Amino acid sequence: MVVALATRVAPDRIEIDGEPIGEFIRRGDPAEMWFRMIQGRTPSQEESAVFGAILCSMADHGDTPPSTQAARLVASSGSPMQCSLAAALLAFGDHHAGAIERAMELFSSCVRDREIPSVVADRFISRGRRVPGFGHRVHREDPRVRPLVEVGSALTHRPHLSFFLGVQDHLRSAKGIVGNVDGVCGALLLDLGFPPSAGRAVFFCGRIPGLVSWILREGELGPFRPYRLVPSEEVAPCIA
Amino acid sequence: MVVALATRVAPDRIEIDGEPIGEFIRRGDPAEMWFRMIQGRTPSQEESAVFGAILCSMADHGDTPPSTQAARLVASSGSPMQCSLAAALLAFGDHHAGAIERAMELFSSCVRDREIPSVVADRFISRGRRVPGFGHRVHREDPRVRPLVEVGSALTHRPHLSFFLGVQDHLRSAKGIVGNVDGVCGALLLDLGFPPSAGRAVFFCGRIPGLVSWILREGELGPFRPYRLVPSEEVAPCIA
Amino acid sequence: MVVALATRVAPDRIEIDGEPIGEFIRRGDPAEMWFRMIQGRTPSQEESAVFGAILCSMADHGDTPPSTQAARLVASSGSPMQCSLAAALLAFGDHHAGAIERAMELFSSCVRDREIPSVVADRFISRGRRVPGFGHRVHREDPRVRPLVEVGSALTHRPHLSFFLGVQDHLRSAKGIVGNVDGVCGALLLDLGFPPSAGRAVFFCGRIPGLVSWILREGELGPFRPYRLVPSEEVAPCIA
Amino acid sequence: MVVALATRVAPDRIEIDGEPIGEFIRRGDPAEMWFRMIQGRTPSQEESAVFGAILCSMADHGDTPPSTQAARLVASSGSPMQCSLAAALLAFGDHHAGAIERAMELFSSCVRDREIPSVVADRFISRGRRVPGFGHRVHREDPRVRPLVEVGSALTHRPHLSFFLGVQDHLRSAKGIVGNVDGVCGALLLDLGFPPSAGRAVFFCGRIPGLVSWILREGELGPFRPYRLVPSEEVAPCIA
Repeated sequence: MVVALATRVAPDRIEIDGEPIGEFIRRGDPAEMWFRMIQGRTPSQEESAVFGAILCSMADHGDTPPSTQAARLVASSGSPMQCSLAAALLAFGDHHAGAIERAMELFSSCVRDREIPSVVADRFISRGRRVPGFGHRVHREDPRVRPLVEVGSALTHRPHLSFFLGVQDHLRSAKGIVGNVDGVCGALLLDLGFPPSAGRAVFFCGRIPGLVSWILREGELGPFRPYRLVPSEEVAPCIA
Repeated sequence: MVVALATRVAPDRIEIDGEPIGEFIRRGDPAEMWFRMIQGRTPSQEESAVFGAILCSMADHGDTPPSTQAARLVASSGSPMQCSLAAALLAFGDHHAGAIERAMELFSSCVRDREIPSVVADRFISRGRRVPGFGHRVHREDPRVRPLVEVGSALTHRPHLSFFLGVQDHLRSAKGIVGNVDGVCGALLLDLGFPPSAGRAVFFCGRIPGLVSWILREGELGPFRPYRLVPSEEVAPCIA
Repeated sequence: MVVALATRVAPDRIEIDGEPIGEFIRRGDPAEMWFRMIQGRTPSQEESAVFGAILCSMADHGDTPPSTQAARLVASSGSPMQCSLAAALLAFGDHHAGAIERAMELFSSCVRDREIPSVVADRFISRGRRVPGFGHRVHREDPRVRPLVEVGSALTHRPHLSFFLGVQDHLRSAKGIVGNVDGVCGALLLDLGFPPSAGRAVFFCGRIPGLVSWILREGELGPFRPYRLVPSEEVAPCIA
Repeated sequence: MVVALATRVAPDRIEIDGEPIGEFIRRGDPAEMWFRMIQGRTPSQEESAVFGAILCSMADHGDTPPSTQAARLVASSGSPMQCSLAAALLAFGDHHAGAIERAMELFSSCVRDREIPSVVADRFISRGRRVPGFGHRVHREDPRVRPLVEVGSALTHRPHLSFFLGVQDHLRSAKGIVGNVDGVCGALLLDLGFPPSAGRAVFFCGRIPGLVSWILREGELGPFRPYRLVPSEEVAPCIA
């Protein structure tokens, strides 16, 4: 028997997190399955719903993220889909996909140390630095934040979401800045039990469908079309 | 306003397939959302459930696929997650991720031309070639097939699933060979309206979570551990 | 002893193509060494000089090839050099890096079948198709062709270069079109004994230095700078 | 005119580091050309010879580096060469390609601060840490070191090579450990004027030919052959 860490494969048998794969297929709930594959524990129904909402919020953000541009550029050169998708992933450098993990690390240590949200926010403001998980280069109010907060309120234990909301209240009145998708997703993932190191893993699971939809459309536009890369005027805190 | 093909992004607004992203977040159903992002139409409840089941069936198959090995190899060298995941994608060559698309092309043309399943199967047998979507290097009965067929029976229109089952009946009695995950997923995706060219796109959406779970675990095993690559005895029709 | 195909590694010993690596280091001639690593035979002094000239001709072509754009895009997102370089490679799709191999396949079969260059050229013209290895989207006279032809004239046996020149004479008078870098390099590589399947391998060896110089400069431009991807007016036979 | 940073491309003209590309082609010396493309200055004849020797020393190290294994794994799955090469690059994580840059940073700061080699070596020994650029998992005497030192002695100004040799003398008598290829190449690259941040760039230029030769051979071995990845017993300071 081939023993993999969480998946066991033997002739005529595949078990994931201790359960036959057929049961996962019959329930047909990717959010619940992937939660278990990453965390190794079964989520409650509320947790599964929140995780599904997080995945949906990450699906796409138009054609301005470098990852999406890299995907289109490679697709336009006639490479197969896996190449375009790989190039997109490689553009998730620390400036891009790392944002959610930085927000998670901040919230995690602040909640652990029982820090006061407004004090933390003021510390960043006084140093002239922006708070990870807040502000967006395009949106004044990131349209993904409010629905995620609503869905997340179903969690009975949500200290990181509370911390995020506390910082947001303070930053909104002090600077007119609100939370972004990295901030609210990071807070909710911590409340769901994901470690900061899993932040970009979840983001990749949620963003791949958006990338493949761009690549499929690029392929439909026909054979090789050249692009030019021009510097953009935008300066960008959150680019997800 | 930045006009992307299916996603529209404007300040404080993100619309996907014509609907504000907040609605997708509130429903929290990745399968429904991704179906729409790839096909540009809203699935029925049955279609969405079948698509969710397909995604679940693709999640992982232990550590023998080349993609999973590439992911572990790169992760063990100290590269960040996006690099490991990109390397895994690059290992989805035509022998690997292409299998589902070959099955879809076969089923699609056979159903269009109203071919008889047993006649098609005999044509392959008489030429000594295996039928795309049938047989597996590890499993005699691929444990993902039966549950997918059950779930897929909820579809009112399912000509490709019927064709797949017809071929399976014939191959089982003639050669003791049954369908594999690529075959049944390919048939169901066609019944759901996905073109063959979208086959590997869907497979990537479903398999990324399995890959990230392997990569996260590799990271937990600590700093650089060397691997050796040794030829395997296995000869492999289906390696997903 | 670890037996690799062309490289043997044992404690305190590394042999490449049967010779201790120290000898290669003392001669310090990358062109001669790489010729041997790919072909498994020692080039004459003329052959080594021609191969060096080919590598030099491939080094860079500004910032318009999709590969260079992909490298800059990924570098600008804060990813390490190997990621930028990998993304560049992925943009070498069939439209891009494949051009040299298509020219090599054509020249190889024409020389083998003793075809007349002008007849071959007319066949393409009469079908309204362009001849692989001829024409360039930017250059009317590709400035790499003449020096390569001069250097290549040192080869005593050069049937593919002669074929290339024969087609060029005809296309120049018939259509005002001359050979491009893919065409002349492809012809010379065949005369040097490289098979068509090694065409893009040699191109990658020659182009990596250009890509790394772009990536190093991108890194010096400082932290994350966003780009926009805009469709280019150019239509492009040769994009190398 | 398209103005690229070091390469200028205009119709019928390509200039690299201010010189027409035809001149580089006529000289046919990749080492001289690439030195200029990365550093933006013309090397002396001695410098060019040393740089050529460095590139040769990096060409290949059998099939045990993770990069070479990743290349073979992806090639065996039926992916095109650029995919295999990209996967190899992604396996150059900080444990692998980063070694040369760590050695360069150490030597650079020590020479700048006029540190005594034996004192630096003792500092590492007393902390139970190994000195970057010294020791090898396979070789007791890395066979690339002595020839590189010989070739490098042609440089009139070689403070970093001297520092490297000073550390080596001390480590050899104190611990029986000698320098590795990363150490001696790093010292020589510093003496040639390359910054530590260019270390892995040069390494990639030198190693690509080895990788493509592995990939070409993998392709010749025929269609899909599965591999297994098994943990290796080796523990590895230098894996280049």
